[in-house]
Amino acid sequence: MKAIILGVGNELISGQTVDTNSAYLSRELGRRGIETLRHETVGDETAAIAGALSRAAAEAEIVLVTGGLGPTADDVTRYGLASVMGAELQLDGQCLREIEDFFQRRGKKMVLANRVQAMIPRGAEPMANAAGTAPGIVATLDGAEVFVMPGVPYEMRDMFESSVLPRLPAGDGVIVHHIVHTFGMGESDVGERIEDLMRAEGEVTIGTTVSEGMVSVRIIASAETIEVADRQVDDAVRKIRSRLGEVVVSEGDETMGEVIGKSLKDRRETLATAESCTGGMIGEMITAVPGSSEYYLGGAITYANEVKLQMLGVEKTDLEAHGAVSEQVAAAMARGCRERFGSDWAIGVTGIAGPTGQSPDKPLGLVYIALAGEGTTDVHRHVFGGSREIVRRRAALSALNHLRLAML
Amino acid sequence: MKAIILGVGNELISGQTVDTNSAYLSRELGRRGIETLRHETVGDETAAIAGALSRAAAEAEIVLVTGGLGPTADDVTRYGLASVMGAELQLDGQCLREIEDFFQRRGKKMVLANRVQAMIPRGAEPMANAAGTAPGIVATLDGAEVFVMPGVPYEMRDMFESSVLPRLPAGDGVIVHHIVHTFGMGESDVGERIEDLMRAEGEVTIGTTVSEGMVSVRIIASAETIEVADRQVDDAVRKIRSRLGEVVVSEGDETMGEVIGKSLKDRRETLATAESCTGGMIGEMITAVPGSSEYYLGGAITYANEVKLQMLGVEKTDLEAHGAVSEQVAAAMARGCRERFGSDWAIGVTGIAGPTGQSPDKPLGLVYIALAGEGTTDVHRHVFGGSREIVRRRAALSALNHLRLAML
Repeated sequence: MKAIILGVGNELISGQTVDTNSAYLSRELGRRGIETLRHETVGDETAAIAGALSRAAAEAEIVLVTGGLGPTADDVTRYGLASVMGAELQLDGQCLREIEDFFQRRGKKMVLANRVQAMIPRGAEPMANAAGTAPGIVATLDGAEVFVMPGVPYEMRDMFESSVLPRLPAGDGVIVHHIVHTFGMGESDVGERIEDLMRAEGEVTIGTTVSEGMVSVRIIASAETIEVADRQVDDAVRKIRSRLGEVVVSEGDETMGEVIGKSLKDRRETLATAESCTGGMIGEMITAVPGSSEYYLGGAITYANEVKLQMLGVEKTDLEAHGAVSEQVAAAMARGCRERFGSDWAIGVTGIAGPTGQSPDKPLGLVYIALAGEGTTDVHRHVFGGSREIVRRRAALSALNHLRLAML
Repeated sequence: MKAIILGVGNELISGQTVDTNSAYLSRELGRRGIETLRHETVGDETAAIAGALSRAAAEAEIVLVTGGLGPTADDVTRYGLASVMGAELQLDGQCLREIEDFFQRRGKKMVLANRVQAMIPRGAEPMANAAGTAPGIVATLDGAEVFVMPGVPYEMRDMFESSVLPRLPAGDGVIVHHIVHTFGMGESDVGERIEDLMRAEGEVTIGTTVSEGMVSVRIIASAETIEVADRQVDDAVRKIRSRLGEVVVSEGDETMGEVIGKSLKDRRETLATAESCTGGMIGEMITAVPGSSEYYLGGAITYANEVKLQMLGVEKTDLEAHGAVSEQVAAAMARGCRERFGSDWAIGVTGIAGPTGQSPDKPLGLVYIALAGEGTTDVHRHVFGGSREIVRRRAALSALNHLRLAML
């Protein structure tokens, strides 16, 4: 079973937007044993869309299309599909009612332009869109099943999971992808510890990638059945974990925030945060997890020095003697935070995210991370490389990682 | 002058890696007046690569290929190119010496596998790779210029800039991209107000896209000279701004956080934040901007109710009578925050981000946003759709947008 994935949009072929939909869809198809032959991306032009659709339908059994279903004049995917099907567009009454309902639920007025989103080629069927207005379209073309979805990633994913997946035929065997995330060790170090696993020939392929400051180990297993592939993945994970030890943070979609959350819940302990250079990013990562109110009490974003004194009880003498970016102030922030919020754990972070603010003895990227617990406060000094964004992200992840290690 | 961009790699068509090379190359070509017809991505298979190359060379004058030049057995782009050229591969002596030099400079041993990287189809030429081992290849195929570059993004960019750009023919004039970001109006509403501009035939193409909760208007101008294209863009921006008024937030790369920052600096005013459901995201957006310490004093992340009382002085009676997600509590959070931080403005946000926590009269996605200024506190009620992540992001952007509008 082969698939071809088409992206439609001028923003894609002009390079203004990076296409993430095709990679997502390939992964999802792979998990069901359906191999992707190729990705193709064309602009918002009826003839180009029709040409790509007819080539794809001739080569593959499944064609997934994303983009060009919006209400505006530049969205012409439905015209391309109708043209290659040799069918006219007609208004689907059920579709129109769903679009009207969508606007009514939000208390918004539906404009005339949205009516075009209920136009479906004769012989094709609409697919409901729970996350937005544009319904999808499913059609048969040259013996291939064609699924047209919106280009907005969360609408596309929602429709793929709820409407496309149940209609997909079963593939040949299965391909299972898995990923193990680590933190605190460089990619070449990680690679060296699992080099023999990466070189081994067989049904399991192992490689490393770096993304957003975490080094991850990718595992791909292909087998006849899901049980065999899962067992191959489990074997590989066990070996990788034994080589890498406590730098392994999580697997799959699990985030650092979720790992911390689980540990805190298990221990029935609570956390509060005091952030300077990360400006709320640590709180944001923690509260991205549903149910985080069970263990996260809250935090102080103490950007101005005055606020560090007032909200956290940092001593003016410490600020004056050592500066805001210092071991002493980080420790005082964490201790003050723990005391004022009444939490079991508190994190204090202060640093120089850049691009300015450094001094001879305090380089750009210098960050002190303090962790206050029952009776102890540990301070870690880091110097992170990279842009302001990268320094902040690494600082936030490192802070959570210190807490993770302390709870092991 | 038209181009087609081909990506080669199993990691791309399996979805393990998102292709960012094609978007980069499209942008670079566009800046030189060369239009990209389509992107295509195929796996590491000689026949698939040859097929894609021959289709592309028949349709476009320029074909840019990335990936599949490595030393391992799965890298077969050179074989695909040789096969479609009907030419045999031959060892290029100069190339081989450069690869040997590369290893010597790094003090590493060159393995035999790396010799294959010096194999070039007869009639083609190598392109030096300063950043890695794999030399590129330039060839003429069916009247098209074909440039083959490595897949590793930084090696590809280096080779594109140093070796491909100087060999690219001049395009037909220039293409300039620009983007205008809006917030607070749906895509169909925005589209309706500029429908005639979007439909107009001419040198300027205008379209809309939605990304991370913002609706953006894209402008593409093509002209003989950069001056003419820039003037076309300026004209289009003026028209778009006059149609859309105050929903226009910014242009180009400027973020909502930067717009807020500029206004606050101009007014010499300060801001503090009190966040519940957004958990620090608003602070994070504000402090992503270098120099934000000039106007941002800090914030309170008041996740637990107890913390709302203690840190912001919210009244227990308000919490009990109206609940934490209420107009009254949002207003009290903003007022308390403004008073305790001593800022000119304060934002208070409380809501139900989901996926649980709703009640019959308080649906998922319900968010109250309060803005406290000199003598006034305004509260806005929103019901956002989408996942926890999307509700939080929309709430954070809306909060900043209310502040932006209040400062207009």
